[in-house]
Amino acid sequence: MKLIAKSAEMQSISESHRLAGKKIAVVPTMGYLHEGHISLIKKAKELADVVITTLFVNPTQFAPNEDFEKYPRSPERDYNLAQENGSDYLFNPATEEMYPGGFHSAINMTGITDKFEGEKRHNHFNGVATVVAKLFNITKPHIAVFGQKDYQQTLAIYQLVRDFLFDLKVVVAPTIRENDGLAMSSRNVYLSSAEREKAGVIYKSLSDALLVIEKGENRRKIINAVLHNTLRSVHEIKIDYASAADADTLEEPDVFLPGEHVILVIAVYLGKTRLIDNALITIPNDPHIKKHYFV
Amino acid sequence: MKLIAKSAEMQSISESHRLAGKKIAVVPTMGYLHEGHISLIKKAKELADVVITTLFVNPTQFAPNEDFEKYPRSPERDYNLAQENGSDYLFNPATEEMYPGGFHSAINMTGITDKFEGEKRHNHFNGVATVVAKLFNITKPHIAVFGQKDYQQTLAIYQLVRDFLFDLKVVVAPTIRENDGLAMSSRNVYLSSAEREKAGVIYKSLSDALLVIEKGENRRKIINAVLHNTLRSVHEIKIDYASAADADTLEEPDVFLPGEHVILVIAVYLGKTRLIDNALITIPNDPHIKKHYFV
Repeated sequence: MKLIAKSAEMQSISESHRLAGKKIAVVPTMGYLHEGHISLIKKAKELADVVITTLFVNPTQFAPNEDFEKYPRSPERDYNLAQENGSDYLFNPATEEMYPGGFHSAINMTGITDKFEGEKRHNHFNGVATVVAKLFNITKPHIAVFGQKDYQQTLAIYQLVRDFLFDLKVVVAPTIRENDGLAMSSRNVYLSSAEREKAGVIYKSLSDALLVIEKGENRRKIINAVLHNTLRSVHEIKIDYASAADADTLEEPDVFLPGEHVILVIAVYLGKTRLIDNALITIPNDPHIKKHYFV
Repeated sequence: MKLIAKSAEMQSISESHRLAGKKIAVVPTMGYLHEGHISLIKKAKELADVVITTLFVNPTQFAPNEDFEKYPRSPERDYNLAQENGSDYLFNPATEEMYPGGFHSAINMTGITDKFEGEKRHNHFNGVATVVAKLFNITKPHIAVFGQKDYQQTLAIYQLVRDFLFDLKVVVAPTIRENDGLAMSSRNVYLSSAEREKAGVIYKSLSDALLVIEKGENRRKIINAVLHNTLRSVHEIKIDYASAADADTLEEPDVFLPGEHVILVIAVYLGKTRLIDNALITIPNDPHIKKHYFV
């Protein structure tokens, strides 16, 4: 695997691969790689000839009060993990490579980015869209692989690709979980061991809500109550939001109709650590027939 | 020449040319083509194997009070002119092709876009940057050709390309002028014949200011006074701005130093028609030696 630090070099490598008829997949990450990222790299390897993993902790997607400075970093371990799992390039630029003119140009999004994470994390999705657009222009991928763990982010990426007509395919891969269901996240390292023991409740609340939907519940307030009730069983949890919403628009109707795709989205603080998770389900046509769901 | 209306088709054509090793140049226009546009198409033909002229009157770069609705349009004449002058494709999309998701995603710029046109035309450069980024993603050019007539726009495009790491070269071609020096512009058609007769004063004011700089004047206030005095000789002219500025940063120092590049920028209303023009000059090292300048 080749380590690339310069945007121009990455661009020229990608252009050569494209001209040689190779299919390129990019896996954008902020590093501190875990099983979730590894599954994305493996998915990319399945789908493309050339896999570029990018490692860049993007300052513009953190609000001033957030954890940009202390975000966990392990570039050498990341290098080894990316290499072992089939990545051909690790693109690890300095901030000046990604923001060569400073911070005078940004993508601004409205719509599905206004709610949930967008409401709680000011400018977060503008920062994500801006850096991902740059990464697309640098790595020139045919395919870009993202994790469902950041569900609203995947919607923002779909919007970015559609609205700016990027000629590439977005692939979203399932969330990878610990044994107790906790979604893999670089931020899990922030948890104390006492907190870590309680963290499974997030997945439990999603599972509980999926179960009632599967059994026929389609009223948003009731579904949300299930999410909240389970989360509240751990008193160290502070709920930032926990809600069912339309999976495509993030709208929150009172009642979901049969066949509609619903996303359950959760953000909580466990101690000082903010964690997010989600689960996708289709409202059953007949509540007595079990439907496939995907967490 | 092929007329293309769909973004996906244009993209697929461009991708094929790239894979075949052809060099693509794009000439973004809002149509109603004149000699200025034709010179850009010819320049593109000189520099590339495949020339794509784009024709799209972009709603997002017009403020609500501006002339979007009445902006002159002549698509058939444009088709013929582009074809006769060597364009291989005319990309003429509907608004829904350029804004497939509506108006939820935009590029936001600060810095050199804050002054002059940016100050007078709210959101203008955000609209320009947004549509040009889309056109780049659709036409996949190696080279993009713009006219110096929209000088500040060329600075915005340079910033867009640098900040978003578009892998292409920007080429700026000189302003083409009528016999009396009036810069070619689609908006010249708005002028009454009486106004048209007076419009040469814009070029005259630039020429007068260039002359005093050439003779050694380097104080901004004096240079600006020359611009304003000549413009004021036509009482139908209302000056929106007329100033000398640093050609790269658009900063306005009191005194320009030898060797510095200076841009003279003008926007005026002649009757109800808003016209812009500019001229570039390098401050002479020795005021007694005439220097090359470029209008």
